[in-house]
Amino acid sequence: MAATFIGLAPFAVADMRSEPIQPVSPVKEINLALSELGKKLYFDPRLSVSGFISCNSCHNLSMGGTDNIKTSIGHKWQEGPINSPTVLNSSLSLAQFWDGRAADLKEQAGGPIANPGEMASSHTLAVDVVASIPGYVHDFKQVFGDSGTVNIDRITDAIAEFEKTLVTPNAPFDRWLLGDDRAISQYELEGYKLFKSSGCVACHNGEAVGGNSFQKMGIMEPYQTRNQVEGRAAVTGKDADRFMFKVPTLRNVELTYPYFHDGEAETLTEATDIMGRLQLGRKFTEEENAKIVAFLKTLTGEQPQFMMPILPPSVDQTPKPRPFDE
Amino acid sequence: MAATFIGLAPFAVADMRSEPIQPVSPVKEINLALSELGKKLYFDPRLSVSGFISCNSCHNLSMGGTDNIKTSIGHKWQEGPINSPTVLNSSLSLAQFWDGRAADLKEQAGGPIANPGEMASSHTLAVDVVASIPGYVHDFKQVFGDSGTVNIDRITDAIAEFEKTLVTPNAPFDRWLLGDDRAISQYELEGYKLFKSSGCVACHNGEAVGGNSFQKMGIMEPYQTRNQVEGRAAVTGKDADRFMFKVPTLRNVELTYPYFHDGEAETLTEATDIMGRLQLGRKFTEEENAKIVAFLKTLTGEQPQFMMPILPPSVDQTPKPRPFDE
Repeated sequence: MAATFIGLAPFAVADMRSEPIQPVSPVKEINLALSELGKKLYFDPRLSVSGFISCNSCHNLSMGGTDNIKTSIGHKWQEGPINSPTVLNSSLSLAQFWDGRAADLKEQAGGPIANPGEMASSHTLAVDVVASIPGYVHDFKQVFGDSGTVNIDRITDAIAEFEKTLVTPNAPFDRWLLGDDRAISQYELEGYKLFKSSGCVACHNGEAVGGNSFQKMGIMEPYQTRNQVEGRAAVTGKDADRFMFKVPTLRNVELTYPYFHDGEAETLTEATDIMGRLQLGRKFTEEENAKIVAFLKTLTGEQPQFMMPILPPSVDQTPKPRPFDE
Repeated sequence: MAATFIGLAPFAVADMRSEPIQPVSPVKEINLALSELGKKLYFDPRLSVSGFISCNSCHNLSMGGTDNIKTSIGHKWQEGPINSPTVLNSSLSLAQFWDGRAADLKEQAGGPIANPGEMASSHTLAVDVVASIPGYVHDFKQVFGDSGTVNIDRITDAIAEFEKTLVTPNAPFDRWLLGDDRAISQYELEGYKLFKSSGCVACHNGEAVGGNSFQKMGIMEPYQTRNQVEGRAAVTGKDADRFMFKVPTLRNVELTYPYFHDGEAETLTEATDIMGRLQLGRKFTEEENAKIVAFLKTLTGEQPQFMMPILPPSVDQTPKPRPFDE
């Protein structure tokens, strides 16, 4: 059988384990020029009205694709309603945002730009800014092959293409899945067994170890929070969807603290304890908790490595940032 | 004569022009491990109390080492008193900050961390945060060769070492200085000749085309601004030093808009016009102004190219960011 898979290492084919979690696939089928343009836009604070906040401000690729803050800081230091989900492996999710209100990465990318509590620009202004910058127009010409028309569709297309590259393969757990017995320790393996046997894996499964369903936060007992966010009910309008959230990916969860949609769980120990009690009706012992946490840390993959982009400069005609306007 | 300079291209030696501006030298004598540690710290928003502002927030290496905002945004969106000077080639300056209150890059680096209007942390807290992070302690051990003691002296040492690497050689003008007649156009060369003959070069000279003296803003006529900053008088206490500022480098000035300590000049055209009138008592014609601006754009050098750093994660014991505390 293995012999028919020409080009794959026979090792991987022969020893791939059959588990409810699958290894993260490396990036493929990327439009590289589009992605490189998207990288610049992802790092460009001129997409915000202040000229200070970029996608990377809250989804920081030096820090697991998050801001590591309870809830995010928006325009004029507004306190955001929700914890920034990681952009890493977000292409694997069934939908975007905690409440799944965007179908895909491209639709998501347009949201924060025009959200008055986040980047506080508008699509019109963002397009005007980008279209005024000769270096960008040159890139748009190259990528889209026409006169370099800039519009929000193309801007979000490019950002989404870059985000598709932000996968984190080769986590120790993935190497174990692929057959390397020594990639994780016995202790970590016991953590994984507990993760399966106690039911965590019912929601946290697949390639992203989550991200593929909506579930209620607080099944066995209600979740107590001062956070006002309603979850999926805000999208569907159904009361039954109150506190339904997209199950977050556990990929790189060691890096994406603090946890939950309200960011109220500061540590993996705390998050594991609360999840056990509220979702599974199970109080993990200290040792069980520690083993699960040890397993979770084997989900830290290779972080995307790339050159810091150099942004094309504004020119005299470029609309100016307005950080302090009323 | 050229034959004695073994290792230098004879071309460069033979044709090097004798001018009041010298080419930027490439980086040499860098402690690479120290600089790599400094790069992480430079990008680490955990040096601020909010966990949101890093050195790179206001000295953005994707944008000419500045924030391209009139005056900077600090903790809780405070409006900064002054325009962020570029970090590029800052190692060439006689002192740091617009008023020269820090002797060198190391002394400068400690300032914003503890400034309540900027990163709003304290040296004690910043050290506690860094020292709590195993990945950093590992780096400190490797770099300093002891048990990995973290202190503000070492943190600022590392940041300064990274900043020494941020030079921008090979600008078109430098290639012209080194003998390449075709590196700049006839029009740009005429701009340079005007820059010299009208006296700009009296202050903007040397390797950084500035940065090597303090001068009064408004010599021939007073500078009108609502900005409250007093300049060097704040350091010396002398009334005569009011409105004395470090002459900014003109390296990469195409990228470091807006201009002056108050950021009130939005374009190079405007800045050139004001400088001519206020410092030299000379009203440049539109054509003269355009030529000088064309010359200034030949000072854009190769931007530092490096991998985006991946920061070591916080652990349970790491002091948490407090962005919204009163």
